[in-house]
Amino acid sequence: MLTKIVLTGAAGALGSRLRAPLAAMCKELVSTDLADALDGVADNETYVKADVGNADEVMALIEGAEMVVHFGAIADEAPFEQIMHSNFMGAYNVWNAAHKHGVRRIVYASSIHAMGMYPKTTRITADMPHRPDSFYGLSKCFAEDMGRMYWDKYGIEAVCLRIYSAPGSVANARALGSYLSYDDCVQLVKRSVDTPVVGFTVLYGVSNNDRSPVDNSAAAFLGYRPKDNAEDFAEAILAKTPKADPLDKAQMCHGGPFATVPLGVSGVQYIKKMSEGN
Amino acid sequence: MLTKIVLTGAAGALGSRLRAPLAAMCKELVSTDLADALDGVADNETYVKADVGNADEVMALIEGAEMVVHFGAIADEAPFEQIMHSNFMGAYNVWNAAHKHGVRRIVYASSIHAMGMYPKTTRITADMPHRPDSFYGLSKCFAEDMGRMYWDKYGIEAVCLRIYSAPGSVANARALGSYLSYDDCVQLVKRSVDTPVVGFTVLYGVSNNDRSPVDNSAAAFLGYRPKDNAEDFAEAILAKTPKADPLDKAQMCHGGPFATVPLGVSGVQYIKKMSEGN
Amino acid sequence: MLTKIVLTGAAGALGSRLRAPLAAMCKELVSTDLADALDGVADNETYVKADVGNADEVMALIEGAEMVVHFGAIADEAPFEQIMHSNFMGAYNVWNAAHKHGVRRIVYASSIHAMGMYPKTTRITADMPHRPDSFYGLSKCFAEDMGRMYWDKYGIEAVCLRIYSAPGSVANARALGSYLSYDDCVQLVKRSVDTPVVGFTVLYGVSNNDRSPVDNSAAAFLGYRPKDNAEDFAEAILAKTPKADPLDKAQMCHGGPFATVPLGVSGVQYIKKMSEGN
Amino acid sequence: MLTKIVLTGAAGALGSRLRAPLAAMCKELVSTDLADALDGVADNETYVKADVGNADEVMALIEGAEMVVHFGAIADEAPFEQIMHSNFMGAYNVWNAAHKHGVRRIVYASSIHAMGMYPKTTRITADMPHRPDSFYGLSKCFAEDMGRMYWDKYGIEAVCLRIYSAPGSVANARALGSYLSYDDCVQLVKRSVDTPVVGFTVLYGVSNNDRSPVDNSAAAFLGYRPKDNAEDFAEAILAKTPKADPLDKAQMCHGGPFATVPLGVSGVQYIKKMSEGN
Amino acid sequence: MLTKIVLTGAAGALGSRLRAPLAAMCKELVSTDLADALDGVADNETYVKADVGNADEVMALIEGAEMVVHFGAIADEAPFEQIMHSNFMGAYNVWNAAHKHGVRRIVYASSIHAMGMYPKTTRITADMPHRPDSFYGLSKCFAEDMGRMYWDKYGIEAVCLRIYSAPGSVANARALGSYLSYDDCVQLVKRSVDTPVVGFTVLYGVSNNDRSPVDNSAAAFLGYRPKDNAEDFAEAILAKTPKADPLDKAQMCHGGPFATVPLGVSGVQYIKKMSEGN
Amino acid sequence: MLTKIVLTGAAGALGSRLRAPLAAMCKELVSTDLADALDGVADNETYVKADVGNADEVMALIEGAEMVVHFGAIADEAPFEQIMHSNFMGAYNVWNAAHKHGVRRIVYASSIHAMGMYPKTTRITADMPHRPDSFYGLSKCFAEDMGRMYWDKYGIEAVCLRIYSAPGSVANARALGSYLSYDDCVQLVKRSVDTPVVGFTVLYGVSNNDRSPVDNSAAAFLGYRPKDNAEDFAEAILAKTPKADPLDKAQMCHGGPFATVPLGVSGVQYIKKMSEGN
Repeated sequence: MLTKIVLTGAAGALGSRLRAPLAAMCKELVSTDLADALDGVADNETYVKADVGNADEVMALIEGAEMVVHFGAIADEAPFEQIMHSNFMGAYNVWNAAHKHGVRRIVYASSIHAMGMYPKTTRITADMPHRPDSFYGLSKCFAEDMGRMYWDKYGIEAVCLRIYSAPGSVANARALGSYLSYDDCVQLVKRSVDTPVVGFTVLYGVSNNDRSPVDNSAAAFLGYRPKDNAEDFAEAILAKTPKADPLDKAQMCHGGPFATVPLGVSGVQYIKKMSEGN
Repeated sequence: MLTKIVLTGAAGALGSRLRAPLAAMCKELVSTDLADALDGVADNETYVKADVGNADEVMALIEGAEMVVHFGAIADEAPFEQIMHSNFMGAYNVWNAAHKHGVRRIVYASSIHAMGMYPKTTRITADMPHRPDSFYGLSKCFAEDMGRMYWDKYGIEAVCLRIYSAPGSVANARALGSYLSYDDCVQLVKRSVDTPVVGFTVLYGVSNNDRSPVDNSAAAFLGYRPKDNAEDFAEAILAKTPKADPLDKAQMCHGGPFATVPLGVSGVQYIKKMSEGN
Repeated sequence: MLTKIVLTGAAGALGSRLRAPLAAMCKELVSTDLADALDGVADNETYVKADVGNADEVMALIEGAEMVVHFGAIADEAPFEQIMHSNFMGAYNVWNAAHKHGVRRIVYASSIHAMGMYPKTTRITADMPHRPDSFYGLSKCFAEDMGRMYWDKYGIEAVCLRIYSAPGSVANARALGSYLSYDDCVQLVKRSVDTPVVGFTVLYGVSNNDRSPVDNSAAAFLGYRPKDNAEDFAEAILAKTPKADPLDKAQMCHGGPFATVPLGVSGVQYIKKMSEGN
Repeated sequence: MLTKIVLTGAAGALGSRLRAPLAAMCKELVSTDLADALDGVADNETYVKADVGNADEVMALIEGAEMVVHFGAIADEAPFEQIMHSNFMGAYNVWNAAHKHGVRRIVYASSIHAMGMYPKTTRITADMPHRPDSFYGLSKCFAEDMGRMYWDKYGIEAVCLRIYSAPGSVANARALGSYLSYDDCVQLVKRSVDTPVVGFTVLYGVSNNDRSPVDNSAAAFLGYRPKDNAEDFAEAILAKTPKADPLDKAQMCHGGPFATVPLGVSGVQYIKKMSEGN
Repeated sequence: MLTKIVLTGAAGALGSRLRAPLAAMCKELVSTDLADALDGVADNETYVKADVGNADEVMALIEGAEMVVHFGAIADEAPFEQIMHSNFMGAYNVWNAAHKHGVRRIVYASSIHAMGMYPKTTRITADMPHRPDSFYGLSKCFAEDMGRMYWDKYGIEAVCLRIYSAPGSVANARALGSYLSYDDCVQLVKRSVDTPVVGFTVLYGVSNNDRSPVDNSAAAFLGYRPKDNAEDFAEAILAKTPKADPLDKAQMCHGGPFATVPLGVSGVQYIKKMSEGN
Repeated sequence: MLTKIVLTGAAGALGSRLRAPLAAMCKELVSTDLADALDGVADNETYVKADVGNADEVMALIEGAEMVVHFGAIADEAPFEQIMHSNFMGAYNVWNAAHKHGVRRIVYASSIHAMGMYPKTTRITADMPHRPDSFYGLSKCFAEDMGRMYWDKYGIEAVCLRIYSAPGSVANARALGSYLSYDDCVQLVKRSVDTPVVGFTVLYGVSNNDRSPVDNSAAAFLGYRPKDNAEDFAEAILAKTPKADPLDKAQMCHGGPFATVPLGVSGVQYIKKMSEGN
């Protein structure tokens, strides 16, 4: 059993669902986020309010940790300065503190948006160069490259989970391939934690969708075997999907709408505005 | 829902099984073949007798279509002039008319015989060069290359289905790997039609056979998940299969007997004559 | 039905479980090993005591055989001279006799230890260069290269089964990925025998483990579909697995402990001594 | 020394320069083209007026030949029917006659336009799938695939020379990479003829340009070592080259202007019209 | 002829040698660096003191530019905050301003240290994932990924020059492979500027050294043909090179000593201290 | 300067030409072979008669050595037992003694015959699986795999030189591609010795032939730049070369005649007998 795990982003949609499973895998779980407090704190869990973009706060949190599950960051496209603070500096603060404190492994919430400009007719693997689609995706490239460096130089392990769709529901045709259910996300993090050695590993976080457009074979040793399948929603979703233009990058690229969202503009708001405009 | 689909080869073994499923996916289905008439025409289906090798007939048929499902061709090796008329010119007529009439996508019945000379110990993918085994296979190479060009130059989408075995039954040891059931073939065409964007995609049409010798991972985003498995017949088939010579290309190549059928000679008749001769 | 199969290593843990299935696939099974006699000899089975390292004995055994299933060898690291006799010379004797007697195919028990020095974060396939971890593994490289040569020059087929874990039980965390059940091993050999043509084929012998770290897609045409899954034991095994050092080759390499066992020293004894020493 | 070589397209810009070198390599050279007669016929050369699109004429010409150097075709984009006659049927007539008459090898003038839609930032090799840019390029794909088939099935050798720029002068910035001098073209054909075995080989016909964008390493055994270099003209050419749009396929693709010439329209005339229009 | 080029890092060892050649290629050259003034300013050159880490200053400089040659940055390992300011923010400021002002192309001084942790027995190409060896190298990964994104999304071209050794002299055994002479560096930048279209291109900046350990074939269309060769110094250098330990990453990795320099510590000072310590 | 080098095979055609250059690179050269004595022993050279197949003799020789240049072996196909003694056991004795005595590096005379069954239309690299053509070639596969293992486990470096043609003269058409001059062979060994770190490296020993059919780019960091070119002899050689059959493996395979020489039969004698028989 692990001694201490630090979970960042513990108040987020994914992070909040990781708290109980992670608490069950270690003696002490330290959860952190920007919220003042969290509900349902487990017996072996401590919540600490902190900003991952603040070096001192991160350094204090990570002391004594065996692993860090780093999910805390802005989860949307945003102005560069905001992404710089929370995502770039957040990741740097985590790895730097991990090195200082002798942390064994970091499990990192990367994103498909590190590879978002590849066309979906290209099956993407873990060993292709980055093609980010946003400042958000660029921050994921940065953290992955940094994680590789800390492994190569200092032997700190990392698993980078390129989460495809923000979990929740299967809302559109793209999600038929990209959906990641909460249960599968939990399994993914559990395998990333319980596998004895992982070195530096990158894999895609998608469910067992018929239309999954990624190749996780390089990380097969982790034993991630997703159970859910967005195909259950295919007929209903496709029936209401308008004709798509194959020359539209928002349709053709892995990153979906982020491929056409202007840099620095919230994807969530941009997509909403576009759909209202139609 | 699609507006108009044109189905060529509608009287063939595969085409006749595609009529009802396609009629359910569009407002208007136009079926065509060389036969005078077809039975069981659906309410939203029109049958037009036409020869795909005749440019004018094809041009007229395709006007107003959103997609063409092009299965009409000679489905055997034959003298070059016959293949030229029905398969080469047929494919050219379809793409040329599609371009003139603004068709969005062509779903094309290609064939394993475009790759038939590869040894089966080579796992074939969608991005390897062609190695046809017959004039028939050569016509499939031609149509695939042409489809790629119309996509690259004009943005007309295409899905090329390299159908492995002519469906029907699992008749011999080769079919244990190459079998494509009618149900799986229908699924394959449905996915090729309902996937929002496909660009230019090539995949192999095989069922979920234990011994399937092809790699469809590049087209995973289509979500083709075959259900049938020729392995149910393995024990019976293998019990009556004579010793095979691994240096015999008809045994070792993906194209099976076509690898040794002389160019221009009907494979069906040649194989029959050979087996009688033995 | 095959005429005569010769099975070497028939008294071993794997070989003894292959006798009945192989006897059911041929008219005559000749089993051989170093033991004086075997129990439960089938009606169409003959047991012959012989040393595969002895050329004359092997030459006599193989006369008239259609296939040889060659599992007879030292199955551990050992001093070079011992490996030379039983594994190198044993394999040479089998292929040489097969050539002299017109044998059609050899099914060979190779081993993961031919590739043992690759890190497990590298997904190994059948077409990567050898990286043996022991004299034992080196003897497997030798036999595979020799098998390739007899196929290339003389058309003698071979299937080289890179058996991952010695079957039996799921004893440690490595086995969660590497486990090969007896049933799956039997299936693997049956497919290697009943597939009509195989040319020269290499594949990995692992069960259907969630954490299987190998890629058998190149040999998919054989139809090997394992049924057992070591994941059933994962929770119990991982609970008692101590923290692993990712810079320890015994943890990080496909060969597991063999990656650090000194050349020529029994892995079984070395591992025992190490664990006692801890 | 070879017995008889047949050279098609003998009156063309390239073909006319191949006559003397080929005449020196064989006992009998038969040159053919659509012209009524050629000047400077060598002692061992015979000129025969013929249309490669005419099967009977080709069959008669090739009788008794050891090799065919097939350069006769329309060397521009043209309406499909014209390309069909001269380029598709021309190539078929040559290979079909070669097979009937036991010809040993065909040296074929293929073209970069078989690969013209690849971006020039992709270094193209001989083993990537076709991406033609025109009916003209599509006819080259057809002949290459057919050549591969006749080699695979019947052992007829072929060297397909993907000639990059029509030789002559270095007229524009694209030619700085794509230029093929007459001397280098002659060397290329000589090596294709004098190399003892070639199997089926594809290589690119470019000079030793600093900016050559292709990879001929797979055909290195032929020993083609071009001598000329378009870089001598770089400064002058670039000084008068207007700013280029990197999103313009005519600038970015290997096929150059053919990437945007409408299918069936003469590239020569289209480019002329465009430049006049500017 | 280009209208306006902006050169950053104009006072540096490389930048100062680029001023005259660049001035000859455009109507107006704006040079910038942290120095108060530069000597020998050309007639069409303006020097502006500016800090690339300052967004406003960069935005003002780049207005009206057609290309930016971005060489301004810390050229050594340094504390993260310093690299963040000059290298990360510097690169961001350049691309962001380029986008705002419609700049056509950025020529960027990247570095081998973006790939420094690969062993030199691995021949590195332009399409392998990053493996940085320092914060300095990580900043180059960042800029390359950002450059790719601006190309993919907005069509801004970039050439990333992974400069291998800081030019000057051939000081040690590593430089026998990694040396880049000033003349060759100038040629590299000139080709990056004068090639009509470049899309997004990465290549290695090394001279024509016999022992060059990199593969620039993907960028061959640029026509970079280095002239100098460090081999002239090989005998003298090797005679005084002490025995190397192949397990020492400073010896075995492409990044040389940077592979073992602690993160954030000046490589120049660290290497000096180490050599004094010996 | 190196302390002690041991050269095996010092009386052979290649070895005898390596003595003087190696003597100039070290304080002490120990040369060994089966001959009783050698002429022209250098001041710092000692000759010791020894059989590399004899473990004790090799163990004694290698004590104190810094590098071993291992060229001593049967250089022809021969009965398995002879190859086993001199080539297999010889190589094992060298690596085993090197390990016992702390030798830093082994430079090994491997051979193209480790890859001889690849067709020459396949450009062979250093990272493709072995395809030996003879027991002789199989012994080279063995030594290479063993060398890789000693590097992976114990850090003993090795350079494996796959010498293509036995040097001397350009005797036939195959040698136009495969020729290795004595001077180039000496350069190859010098680079293998003087390069500071080499890890485990495989490269092909060929001269700078126009028709060189191999790819040495993976070993570019060694700086091997051959000077001689067999093309000087091309015209004369080709003029007397009879028509070749492309289906004859002796013509089509990299191994040349060894591809068809029966296993265990001297290639030299077999080729002589064949040519006399013609």
